[in-house]
Amino acid sequence: MTDEQRKLEKLRRQLELQHKKLRHIFSIGRESVAILGSQKPEQLDAILQVIADETAELLDSEVASILLIDPKTDLMTIRAAAGISEDVIRKTKIKVGERISGWVAKHKKGLLVLDIEKNPFFVKRNQEKYYTKSLISAPIKINHTVFGVINVNNKHSRRSFEADDLDLLQALADHTALIIRNFDLYKELQELYMKTVQALTEAIDVKDHYTKKHSENVTEYASAIAREMGLSHKKREIVINAAKLHDIGKIGVHDYILTKTGKLTPEEWGEMKSHSLKGVKILEPLTFLSDVVEVIKHHHEHYDGSGYPDGQKGDEISVEAKIMSVADAYDAMTTKRAYAAAMTKEKAIEDLKRQSGKQFDPAVVRAFLKVLKRSKDNNL
Amino acid sequence: MTDEQRKLEKLRRQLELQHKKLRHIFSIGRESVAILGSQKPEQLDAILQVIADETAELLDSEVASILLIDPKTDLMTIRAAAGISEDVIRKTKIKVGERISGWVAKHKKGLLVLDIEKNPFFVKRNQEKYYTKSLISAPIKINHTVFGVINVNNKHSRRSFEADDLDLLQALADHTALIIRNFDLYKELQELYMKTVQALTEAIDVKDHYTKKHSENVTEYASAIAREMGLSHKKREIVINAAKLHDIGKIGVHDYILTKTGKLTPEEWGEMKSHSLKGVKILEPLTFLSDVVEVIKHHHEHYDGSGYPDGQKGDEISVEAKIMSVADAYDAMTTKRAYAAAMTKEKAIEDLKRQSGKQFDPAVVRAFLKVLKRSKDNNL
Repeated sequence: MTDEQRKLEKLRRQLELQHKKLRHIFSIGRESVAILGSQKPEQLDAILQVIADETAELLDSEVASILLIDPKTDLMTIRAAAGISEDVIRKTKIKVGERISGWVAKHKKGLLVLDIEKNPFFVKRNQEKYYTKSLISAPIKINHTVFGVINVNNKHSRRSFEADDLDLLQALADHTALIIRNFDLYKELQELYMKTVQALTEAIDVKDHYTKKHSENVTEYASAIAREMGLSHKKREIVINAAKLHDIGKIGVHDYILTKTGKLTPEEWGEMKSHSLKGVKILEPLTFLSDVVEVIKHHHEHYDGSGYPDGQKGDEISVEAKIMSVADAYDAMTTKRAYAAAMTKEKAIEDLKRQSGKQFDPAVVRAFLKVLKRSKDNNL
Repeated sequence: MTDEQRKLEKLRRQLELQHKKLRHIFSIGRESVAILGSQKPEQLDAILQVIADETAELLDSEVASILLIDPKTDLMTIRAAAGISEDVIRKTKIKVGERISGWVAKHKKGLLVLDIEKNPFFVKRNQEKYYTKSLISAPIKINHTVFGVINVNNKHSRRSFEADDLDLLQALADHTALIIRNFDLYKELQELYMKTVQALTEAIDVKDHYTKKHSENVTEYASAIAREMGLSHKKREIVINAAKLHDIGKIGVHDYILTKTGKLTPEEWGEMKSHSLKGVKILEPLTFLSDVVEVIKHHHEHYDGSGYPDGQKGDEISVEAKIMSVADAYDAMTTKRAYAAAMTKEKAIEDLKRQSGKQFDPAVVRAFLKVLKRSKDNNL
């Protein structure tokens, strides 16, 4: 082989390596975006696993690990790894500030260690192979927020890592940070949806403890009817939130009307009926509840068109609103109220049957009767 | 030059090019994560500009553009570009489904066009130089959600783009999609915070229109005092939200007590005083309001320790709560209420002065007097 052939050969190998790097970078990006679907917590683990595997490949190394910090305890655990035993993954707990990963997390700076045994943060454990002396570690961070670190060691070539390798690792860590932030924001948003509904039900409760208990019962009945009728997961969610909040407009109805034992005057009855539109007014700013608001608006429509506020009839009324209507009426009948004693279940069921096709959609009544029969058979 | 020298030269150039690609990928990642700080809308534009510039460099091209879709109109506009005049950037509006960018957005697939003039979607415009025939375009998407497209054309070498180039562009588009999703989620979260507060103030309003108007006045006064006292932006935000929601617990106080014209019995007074803790109960699920909840809890503490619910005194009471207390009292005094006619401003100011050091913190009273004097001087 001539000198030039050798040089040529070397360049070809380098070029091939660079190509490989680019391909891995592409596939990390592509796979992680592809997995980033409905953003369930399991999916973050799947993406981190792809990143750990590809990082090891990309840096021609045997071992790569992604450690994330639990902000409550400041402890880092391994969330994904390549080339590390399940046992070590499970046992590893590193405090921010301690050992190499902890140093990187604390100082928010990448680290290239040439001789690991000379590093003061290195803790040798018997079960690990440190056949190379060199490792790199990069913080996963956005600005001053550190989510964790990525570590790579045991280079296949048994050479030391170089500054270029650390640059590459930092690029992968930045990508990882973006993905984690995405999951965090998404999770926060989902939690806020739930908590907002919870705060609103608390507002119902401080106004009128009876209404909150009623809302809980209606939620149970409506949810069971929705399942019995085979509604989609999404529609069942709408029914559940609508049930929890259907009477929120009663915050705007005078206490003496809500608790009056005698017959309501036409004016009082008008105010009572205003609660569905008052509920709409309260919830309107919350666009994530817009489907729920529609159901609340129409939970007092009647199948024959005699209800309020819009006098909708038959299939003009959404199935969710028709379910609410039956569940609401049944709980009202079977519970003691200011103006009436509680009816027996049997009598309330008679009433539902009598109103089927008039106040209520027959299909919904049928589904509810099945639900009630099943819970009776099960002594519930 | 020998044959082998020529090959060597060629490989060196290719290697240099690959290195350059990697460096650009690193810097896109690094810069975009660095900019992704407080996530104001302007910052998205800054990141997109970095991506457009680096993309043009990376693909050795004169022109790169990032078009984003407005989901309301289905129109794409150029949000960042390299090598395109401001005029074209401003005027370009492309409907999803139309022209090349529209095709890519609609079909959610990258496109490598070898001869642009033969492409049925190509629309030639006089002001543009299409000296190369080839362009590439990649969708910016996560799963089925398309945010926009990245286009690159006018390769400096005047050669055609290749499949590899499109792969690289897609990787950049994936990175861009992650960043946009981040901004979207963040924006949604911020909006939900605001809307949740808005829904809760609507709940106050349907219960008691007077209380909502009162809350608006208190917000105005408290915000002015906070500014006068030089509170930080964050603390002023807390004061504003606390003022909007400080009486939300009145939802849980009987109407006849809120509107009673005579003196309250001790029992009624007890219920009236319960409103600050009832407010806490409603807002407790909303962790983003935890600082606000603290202020609401203590907005009826007195500087001398004679207030409720905890009888805090002096600097045990937060400055935000002390501000609320003064603003709340002043609006109560100067507004007509069920149990009392409105006081004149002068008389209310006398009262504030008299209670300074007793009910109120003297520093807060001084700040408010300055605010009131200034608005009087300005005839407000």
